[in-house]
Amino acid sequence: MPVEFKHPSATKTIMTEMVLPNDTNALNNLRGGKILHWMDIATAISAQKLANRPVVTVSVDHVSFLNPIKLGDVVTIESKVTRTFNSSMETFVQVWAENLPTQTKYKCNDAYYSFVALDSNGRPTKTTELVPETDDEKDQFEKAMKRRQLRLILAGRMKPEEADELKSLFAQ
Amino acid sequence: MPVEFKHPSATKTIMTEMVLPNDTNALNNLRGGKILHWMDIATAISAQKLANRPVVTVSVDHVSFLNPIKLGDVVTIESKVTRTFNSSMETFVQVWAENLPTQTKYKCNDAYYSFVALDSNGRPTKTTELVPETDDEKDQFEKAMKRRQLRLILAGRMKPEEADELKSLFAQ
Amino acid sequence: MPVEFKHPSATKTIMTEMVLPNDTNALNNLRGGKILHWMDIATAISAQKLANRPVVTVSVDHVSFLNPIKLGDVVTIESKVTRTFNSSMETFVQVWAENLPTQTKYKCNDAYYSFVALDSNGRPTKTTELVPETDDEKDQFEKAMKRRQLRLILAGRMKPEEADELKSLFAQ
Amino acid sequence: MPVEFKHPSATKTIMTEMVLPNDTNALNNLRGGKILHWMDIATAISAQKLANRPVVTVSVDHVSFLNPIKLGDVVTIESKVTRTFNSSMETFVQVWAENLPTQTKYKCNDAYYSFVALDSNGRPTKTTELVPETDDEKDQFEKAMKRRQLRLILAGRMKPEEADELKSLFAQ
Amino acid sequence: MPVEFKHPSATKTIMTEMVLPNDTNALNNLRGGKILHWMDIATAISAQKLANRPVVTVSVDHVSFLNPIKLGDVVTIESKVTRTFNSSMETFVQVWAENLPTQTKYKCNDAYYSFVALDSNGRPTKTTELVPETDDEKDQFEKAMKRRQLRLILAGRMKPEEADELKSLFAQ
Amino acid sequence: MPVEFKHPSATKTIMTEMVLPNDTNALNNLRGGKILHWMDIATAISAQKLANRPVVTVSVDHVSFLNPIKLGDVVTIESKVTRTFNSSMETFVQVWAENLPTQTKYKCNDAYYSFVALDSNGRPTKTTELVPETDDEKDQFEKAMKRRQLRLILAGRMKPEEADELKSLFAQ
Repeated sequence: MPVEFKHPSATKTIMTEMVLPNDTNALNNLRGGKILHWMDIATAISAQKLANRPVVTVSVDHVSFLNPIKLGDVVTIESKVTRTFNSSMETFVQVWAENLPTQTKYKCNDAYYSFVALDSNGRPTKTTELVPETDDEKDQFEKAMKRRQLRLILAGRMKPEEADELKSLFAQ
Repeated sequence: MPVEFKHPSATKTIMTEMVLPNDTNALNNLRGGKILHWMDIATAISAQKLANRPVVTVSVDHVSFLNPIKLGDVVTIESKVTRTFNSSMETFVQVWAENLPTQTKYKCNDAYYSFVALDSNGRPTKTTELVPETDDEKDQFEKAMKRRQLRLILAGRMKPEEADELKSLFAQ
Repeated sequence: MPVEFKHPSATKTIMTEMVLPNDTNALNNLRGGKILHWMDIATAISAQKLANRPVVTVSVDHVSFLNPIKLGDVVTIESKVTRTFNSSMETFVQVWAENLPTQTKYKCNDAYYSFVALDSNGRPTKTTELVPETDDEKDQFEKAMKRRQLRLILAGRMKPEEADELKSLFAQ
Repeated sequence: MPVEFKHPSATKTIMTEMVLPNDTNALNNLRGGKILHWMDIATAISAQKLANRPVVTVSVDHVSFLNPIKLGDVVTIESKVTRTFNSSMETFVQVWAENLPTQTKYKCNDAYYSFVALDSNGRPTKTTELVPETDDEKDQFEKAMKRRQLRLILAGRMKPEEADELKSLFAQ
Repeated sequence: MPVEFKHPSATKTIMTEMVLPNDTNALNNLRGGKILHWMDIATAISAQKLANRPVVTVSVDHVSFLNPIKLGDVVTIESKVTRTFNSSMETFVQVWAENLPTQTKYKCNDAYYSFVALDSNGRPTKTTELVPETDDEKDQFEKAMKRRQLRLILAGRMKPEEADELKSLFAQ
Repeated sequence: MPVEFKHPSATKTIMTEMVLPNDTNALNNLRGGKILHWMDIATAISAQKLANRPVVTVSVDHVSFLNPIKLGDVVTIESKVTRTFNSSMETFVQVWAENLPTQTKYKCNDAYYSFVALDSNGRPTKTTELVPETDDEKDQFEKAMKRRQLRLILAGRMKPEEADELKSLFAQ
């Protein structure tokens, strides 16, 4: 009998990477595109840990790059699934970097990547349900509805006036 | 005397890539993270074509992946700068893929990447002004204000109720 | 019904690449081998655009490297099919590089790569015919015979004295 | 006191590579561009062994790809310097591939790459003289003049009618 | 004032990687050499976390590969520093792999990598002292002397008959 | 009829590599992990040359890194099979590096990698027998028994007191 639900902790993924020359731009900073790539792999692993199936990225929400990451720094990427929907799931990923010789650790960015799990015919399928445990996980779980509406609007699949969760934010 | 302004066409960048095995996931589809990486390089080149300076990625807006791209397909990426702000610029990038043996060409996704140009001390600096020419470029230019407000809200740097451009969208 | 012929413009491919540390030698110049690699991919895509079939490289003509390309420069590669023969086609590829901060653009090299298209059994097959349009394309088309003779001689598949097109060049 | 001359054997370089998935095209054959890249590295090492200085590729002569190389095959690349000129040197490189499970070894292609050695200011400089020893090396050394004339003609730096070494070939 | 000592937990590093096509051999198993490479990066990060200085690998102890790791599997690598010596430190690293669709997790191998920390002149230097906390860490700490003697013998820097810690093992 | 035995010379493999930026650490030295990776490929090719079958790495013996290898240096890797056992074979690999501009060549390290050859069902199988020829090969062949016992002890598959070949070493 398959598992009925999982907690976000069961989907946690930690990646550690070192910034190598080819990952940087002319200023010796890690390229934004490389970070987006690593975050995609970490969140895809989290999504697979929940679904135990192949997954495909369906969207990435807005990402801000707070601090440039330097050549030689060590990058830590942590991701978890935050909520499942009908045929998709949302993951949250955070990125820190650390300069070990100077012992400076700094937050770089975070993002929400969404995935769809596929069945053996390559068609979207339901995944195992996710049940949040900690306060932080419950908060992420709840606000996921708001992010989903924004996502649907931005993808042109929902009209702004139908986005009940979001409307309240602006209609003040 | 430096150039006073440029048209978006002067910033146009076209990349063509072939999807190789290491770029794909277990389903033989191009990873979302790899597309995000290529889009970052193309838009960074567009931004540099305007600024003639090193640039750093400051944000990526929401990206939806419409169609999976298969191993062996040819990917075409086109980007242009759409608008400059005080110390940043917005670029627009579109991605198509084509299966040459079957002659099927399909749109995969598009996105807005924002960049800051840096002076010789590595500090943000003004770039050459951008003047839109075509109707499409003028439209992108105008709507850039709305996207910028959404970006500031999502990065936690603007309150939703201050976003005049966006409020009208929801307050119906 | 399949297309009867195509113009060279239908086979045009543009690649844009940035020179990264691993692509360079000890002098911070792009390695010749890396340029040859990129030109092979661009021309293979052009050849596939004509043939709509898998293609294999059969030869590269003489390549001279005019100017070294520096780390961080942006490389633009443009290729087109120039002529089809019985079971092969010739492509022409040009490479420019640009240092964006100093706004210096320079020609690096050009070359002719030849390809054979393969049928579903992996055997050489005829491709769609190519009909040149512009004066430049017509000139490339005509001179292709001369290059082909030189190619056959250099590959040891034609005797110099049989190369009518070439003989006139030397017998003056 | 620096060495006055070297024999070609002192410049011999052997590379062994395995064909990995990313090196192949849709037919599981090694891409021509990848072979050209490996040949460039092997010949550059040979040229450095003679010059004991940094070198840059100045040209590649015509290359024919005789046999496709398959995924998983082992590729052996052997190169030597064949002759030095005023400020350049010519190298010869041969490529074989072997399928170890079936014990089939086959010749793939050979080519001439030319290099210039650079002094500490990055300017072309004379290299150590090369003195051929074996019959094969002496033959390569002599015919190098003919290849050099063809190279100069193809690069547009010599008129065909001035190419004494080549003229005899065609004027029969 | 610098830190006087650290616990092994402060040096813990977790890497997660996905096995991609280029990492595998003809049997679709992850190459042993790639695992050794990943283990080297993880342990180097652990060593840097203790030393807060650049480090160089000085040796790897015997590594047995228990189970082949398949293409697409997720590899988890965990490392910690186990003991510091005069001018070197020993790290322990463990590797597991997991096939997420079938939910099979298996141990692949473990190993000891030793590092030396370098001062600003690139010379070996003392690192922060390591104080074990848990029973497992204390056990690793103690047995490190035995492994060190074996290492010195294998590197030809100690005679077997001087290896007191090891002699007892065999002289039964 | 298959070959009954081979000499070590038939398994000899030479690789030549250039140290590129991405292969180095913050000190511009080649990473230990990258050397281990290259040694694994060279020895796997040697093992395949003996077995003419796919092979998998089963263990690596102790490796000491004698001298750091610098960015831009040329690395030469030479490997041979030293002995076959029931279902495995041992290979020996040596690594030198050379700085060509200064003409300094230095030994970097050597190691023993063991492999198992697999039949068409992916199961371990006997390989062609190896018969040593030179004095050096005979010496390697004989001492292989001692190394094998140490390997079995370190992998926990033999008790130290059963290791007759090794006991004599310590019991003095």
